[in-house]
Amino acid sequence: MSLPFVRHLRGKRVVLASGSPRRKEILSSVLGLKYDVVPSTFPETLDRSKYSPKDYVLANAREKGMEVYTRLNSNADLIISADTVVCLDGEILEKPRDPDHAFDMLSKLNGNKHYVYTGVTLIYKKDNSSDPITYSFVEETEVIFRKNSEDMIRAYVGTGDPFDKAGGYGYQGIASVFVEKINGCYYNVVGLPSSLFVKLEELVRTKEI
Amino acid sequence: MSLPFVRHLRGKRVVLASGSPRRKEILSSVLGLKYDVVPSTFPETLDRSKYSPKDYVLANAREKGMEVYTRLNSNADLIISADTVVCLDGEILEKPRDPDHAFDMLSKLNGNKHYVYTGVTLIYKKDNSSDPITYSFVEETEVIFRKNSEDMIRAYVGTGDPFDKAGGYGYQGIASVFVEKINGCYYNVVGLPSSLFVKLEELVRTKEI
Repeated sequence: MSLPFVRHLRGKRVVLASGSPRRKEILSSVLGLKYDVVPSTFPETLDRSKYSPKDYVLANAREKGMEVYTRLNSNADLIISADTVVCLDGEILEKPRDPDHAFDMLSKLNGNKHYVYTGVTLIYKKDNSSDPITYSFVEETEVIFRKNSEDMIRAYVGTGDPFDKAGGYGYQGIASVFVEKINGCYYNVVGLPSSLFVKLEELVRTKEI
Repeated sequence: MSLPFVRHLRGKRVVLASGSPRRKEILSSVLGLKYDVVPSTFPETLDRSKYSPKDYVLANAREKGMEVYTRLNSNADLIISADTVVCLDGEILEKPRDPDHAFDMLSKLNGNKHYVYTGVTLIYKKDNSSDPITYSFVEETEVIFRKNSEDMIRAYVGTGDPFDKAGGYGYQGIASVFVEKINGCYYNVVGLPSSLFVKLEELVRTKEI
């Protein structure tokens, strides 16, 4: 029930440099990949004012991946790292600090469109070369919120769902009621775009890994 | 962890008139609803040539819902029925009959955009009125396939995944590698649009159910 490139990768040590349950779900349940989880300890302390949102997630993804690569001392065939942000009018929205912050954030998103960016980095070694090859890309998805009532937003904040999520909502759960439509890759909003699968297939097909 | 209207509906007998595992997953895991499953026995024999794709799914959803309503002899507070089709250049694509049919279908979708339509019908009784209230709507999502290789399509057909799915693919699984982007509601592609959640919230808020 899995695609040939996925079966090939099961014979390799693939490491996901992220502890996100949603990224694990995409790689396991959607793609059927086997992998080890080694969450990066890279502190997300880059100065956001110096980056565009796209460059910010790319930089974070690269730093996360390289931190795990260095720590594992090249004991992996492929490392996958990623960073996702929600961006409204050029402003990056993080995980909400508390219920009031979550309510403010969701009120800003309400009735508006925003963008979700995920930066992805793949790190692998070709043959017995000593230097790793690093490949990074970013994916953008537009998300359009319905004009939801204040009561609905308060009720959602009350469920506790927003607090571990950039932008204060998760499209994969009950907050789906807020989202009228998306324009782009669904999986990108959840945390890993399907263009990652295409890249993995290409790397296997061209015998890079 | 659930929204107030969902908690309210847990005190009602909600019936899903569909055996689709994907629809069950959306209502259970995404929304957190409790319900009974009573798959409709309505045979999908409407003459497609007499309907537009939107009218076709609406008619099917209504017939499925009414069949279950009649069979249950009004022993339900709310019946949810739905029908989903994949439509390419005005032609409705059904579930593929065999591997060759699946390959042809996916080759037509390949590198192109198509539309997914889900018709939804809600049937409920207000107070002690003897006549049921029926509410139907249809949701459209545009889906854009990448230009995937023939090898990838053949490999996917070989997994057996296409055969229970309209259009021969499921965006919620490994076929996500084929889909570059969608424009609309993700859940609509899977089988029940999130506008259904909005309607349920409205029905509870306005004390219709």
